[in-house]
Amino acid sequence: MLNKLYVALIHYPIVGKDDSIISTAVTNLDIHDISRSCRTYNIKKFFMVSNLSAQREIVKRVFRYWKEGFGKKHNPNRNDALSIAEIRKYLEDVIEEITEIEGKRPKLVFTSAKPREKEISFDEMKKVIREETAPILILYGTGWGMPEEIREICDYDLDPIRGKAEFNHLSVRAAVAISLDRLIGEETI
Amino acid sequence: MLNKLYVALIHYPIVGKDDSIISTAVTNLDIHDISRSCRTYNIKKFFMVSNLSAQREIVKRVFRYWKEGFGKKHNPNRNDALSIAEIRKYLEDVIEEITEIEGKRPKLVFTSAKPREKEISFDEMKKVIREETAPILILYGTGWGMPEEIREICDYDLDPIRGKAEFNHLSVRAAVAISLDRLIGEETI
Repeated sequence: MLNKLYVALIHYPIVGKDDSIISTAVTNLDIHDISRSCRTYNIKKFFMVSNLSAQREIVKRVFRYWKEGFGKKHNPNRNDALSIAEIRKYLEDVIEEITEIEGKRPKLVFTSAKPREKEISFDEMKKVIREETAPILILYGTGWGMPEEIREICDYDLDPIRGKAEFNHLSVRAAVAISLDRLIGEETI
Repeated sequence: MLNKLYVALIHYPIVGKDDSIISTAVTNLDIHDISRSCRTYNIKKFFMVSNLSAQREIVKRVFRYWKEGFGKKHNPNRNDALSIAEIRKYLEDVIEEITEIEGKRPKLVFTSAKPREKEISFDEMKKVIREETAPILILYGTGWGMPEEIREICDYDLDPIRGKAEFNHLSVRAAVAISLDRLIGEETI
């Protein structure tokens, strides 16, 4: 169902340049861009996930500026966009929270720019999103992507965007925007 | 033709919050995100346009870091993405340069989140892009958008993305990504 879609941006656990598991730093424009994209495509909540309390505090400061501070008055659209954004410690917390809101555990969708086995196409996923009665949580990685341990608990493994192109190094902000547009398009709820 | 597509991000002339004409500041992530999106969709060149020499100097410094400095070694993909990025003073300079490269003046495409008269749909524009023999330059605004004086010299006026949605305040980075995906999709040249 289009009215039970959730997005999470994972900062931990993440694969680092040398294949170890790391926490990535939050990027200010991730907060804004992905909130604005999610709000435009009627995503119910956009969760940022970081296990580092200092990072969560930075995100909360940005939230405060735009939700309560000068930013709210200066640019009300930002306030509106950020109204769906949250920061949580672990992916498990996000899954629990969605389960509480919807009364049903969300189906998880893995995304990556790397080709994997058993991918679901955007067209098939588009259908699933419209037919599935459980909430759906689409996961996006930062750094060098999400580790196998996350992929293994996911119900769907979404096709890379332009996986056959000679160069497909989109920013996560662009990847979220494009995939939400491919899955939801002009449809409103 | 898919191999004669150009993108420009306009920082002047731009509409300001109070409807006056302003120069906007360059955003570091615009340089990276839009270069990466353009490179992924085989855009021939991505031009940033700013009439302010201090702003152009900042962009050139970012270019130098990733094209020649430490960044080149640290992350070769960024170097590759930025290989198609340029900074120019005026839109006229960009049009002249493309005319020189292609031997034909580019057709200009206007984009905006606001609904206008005489818009061309993404499906129609997709066809034009494949059939047109002249190069095509797609223009994106910053700030509160591009002024009428630019719209008037454009050949096409592209539909807003989710123009009918209750909220459609995408970042320009997201708007570029989504519109290139809608117009080009998975097709490679």
